[in-house]
Amino acid sequence: MRLRNKPRAVGEIADNPQSITTIPADFKGKWQTKFAETQPLNVEIGSGKGRFIIEMAKAYPKQNFIGIELQPSVAIMILEKQLLEKLPNLYLIQANGENLTDYFATDEVANLYLNFSDPWPKKRHAKRRLTHKIFLAMYEQVLQPEGKVTFKTDNRGLFEFSLMSFNAYGAQFEQLSLDLHNSPEITDNIETEYEQRFSQMGHPIYLAKIQFAGAK
Amino acid sequence: MRLRNKPRAVGEIADNPQSITTIPADFKGKWQTKFAETQPLNVEIGSGKGRFIIEMAKAYPKQNFIGIELQPSVAIMILEKQLLEKLPNLYLIQANGENLTDYFATDEVANLYLNFSDPWPKKRHAKRRLTHKIFLAMYEQVLQPEGKVTFKTDNRGLFEFSLMSFNAYGAQFEQLSLDLHNSPEITDNIETEYEQRFSQMGHPIYLAKIQFAGAK
Repeated sequence: MRLRNKPRAVGEIADNPQSITTIPADFKGKWQTKFAETQPLNVEIGSGKGRFIIEMAKAYPKQNFIGIELQPSVAIMILEKQLLEKLPNLYLIQANGENLTDYFATDEVANLYLNFSDPWPKKRHAKRRLTHKIFLAMYEQVLQPEGKVTFKTDNRGLFEFSLMSFNAYGAQFEQLSLDLHNSPEITDNIETEYEQRFSQMGHPIYLAKIQFAGAK
Repeated sequence: MRLRNKPRAVGEIADNPQSITTIPADFKGKWQTKFAETQPLNVEIGSGKGRFIIEMAKAYPKQNFIGIELQPSVAIMILEKQLLEKLPNLYLIQANGENLTDYFATDEVANLYLNFSDPWPKKRHAKRRLTHKIFLAMYEQVLQPEGKVTFKTDNRGLFEFSLMSFNAYGAQFEQLSLDLHNSPEITDNIETEYEQRFSQMGHPIYLAKIQFAGAK
C-alpha cells in the first residue's frame, strides 16, 4: 500500500490508549479487560485499513476483536474509524504481528485471521511468510484447542506454500476454496479493501480455514 | 468422452492377451511377468485414449506401466497404439479401476496416477470420487510405503474435496500446483488428451502429489 507520511500518527496513537496500544506485551493474558464484555477473542494479523476487523466486530457483537497493524500511518486509519464507531468489542494493536506469543497467553485467542499477508515470493524469504511452520507453532500456542486460523490470499504461490505448510504441520483443513467469490456455499465472507479491489479485477481469492486440534 | 459404438472392441481385446487383460485379478501379485524387465510398476486409473500412459512408458523405459480403462471402445484406442508401438514396459487393463485391491497385491505398485477423474459433483455421490477415503485406503494398501499418488484435474470442486480428503486421511503433500501449466518449476508434466484441450481453453490445471508414509 502507498503510504503517505502522517506525522500525526504516532501522537494520535499515543493519545488514545482506550482504543489502541503500541506495547501489547503489557496486556498478555489480560486482553479481556480492554472490552465491555468478556467474550471469545478474535485476532487479525495485518489489518491494513481495517475494513475486515471493523465489519467483523459489527457482525459479531458477542465476540471481541483485535486488529494488529504494524504501520502507524495505516493503523491510524483504523483508529480514526473506531473513534467514530466506538465499537465496544474492538481494540487495536500497532506493533509487529510476528511476535504473537509475546502478546497473547496460551489459549487466550479463539480465532486468528490472516488476510492477504506479504507473499515473500523469494525462496530465501520463506521463513518470513506468516504460514511458515515457525508461525504455525505460535498460532497453535496462543489459540484455544478448537480455535481456527482463517487465511485468505490472492497469491497462488503463497497459497500453495501455505497448504503444504499446514499439511506438513499436521493441521486439519476445515474449509478450502480456490475461488472464494464463486463459492456460493460460503456465505459468511467479509471482504478486506484489498480483496474487493483484486476480486473486481477477476483474480481468484483463495481461502483455507484450519485447526490444530490433534496436530503433532 | 463421446463414445462411438465399436462392436469390434471386445473381440480385439480378447485377441491380444499379450497387451491387455479383462481379468486383472488373475495377475494379482504377478504383474512383473507381463513385462520384459522387472522394474517399478506405475499404474494409471482411467487412461482414456492413452496419451499419458504411452508417453510415460516412452519417457521412463526403466519403469513399467499399466493403464486401466473401463470402456472397451476407449481401451482399444490405447491397445491399437500399443500394437504399433510395442512398448516392452506397457500393459493394459480393461476393467473397473475402482477395484484396485482385487488387482494388485500389497506393496506391488510404485506410483499411482489419477488424471481428470469423474468429479461426481453431487454431494450424495462423494463416495464415488476417486479421492474419497475409501479409495485412499486402497491406494495405501497397494502402494509401496514411499509410493506416491499423482492427481490432476481441472475441476475446482473435485480438487478442493481431494485436498480436504488427503489432509483428513493424514497423507503428506509432496507437490501442489493450482495452475500446473504456469508452474515453471514443474518440468516433468506429461499431458493427457483432455488436459491439452482444457488448458488450451485457458482453464487452470490443478496438481497434487501425495504419499502415505506415516499416514494413520
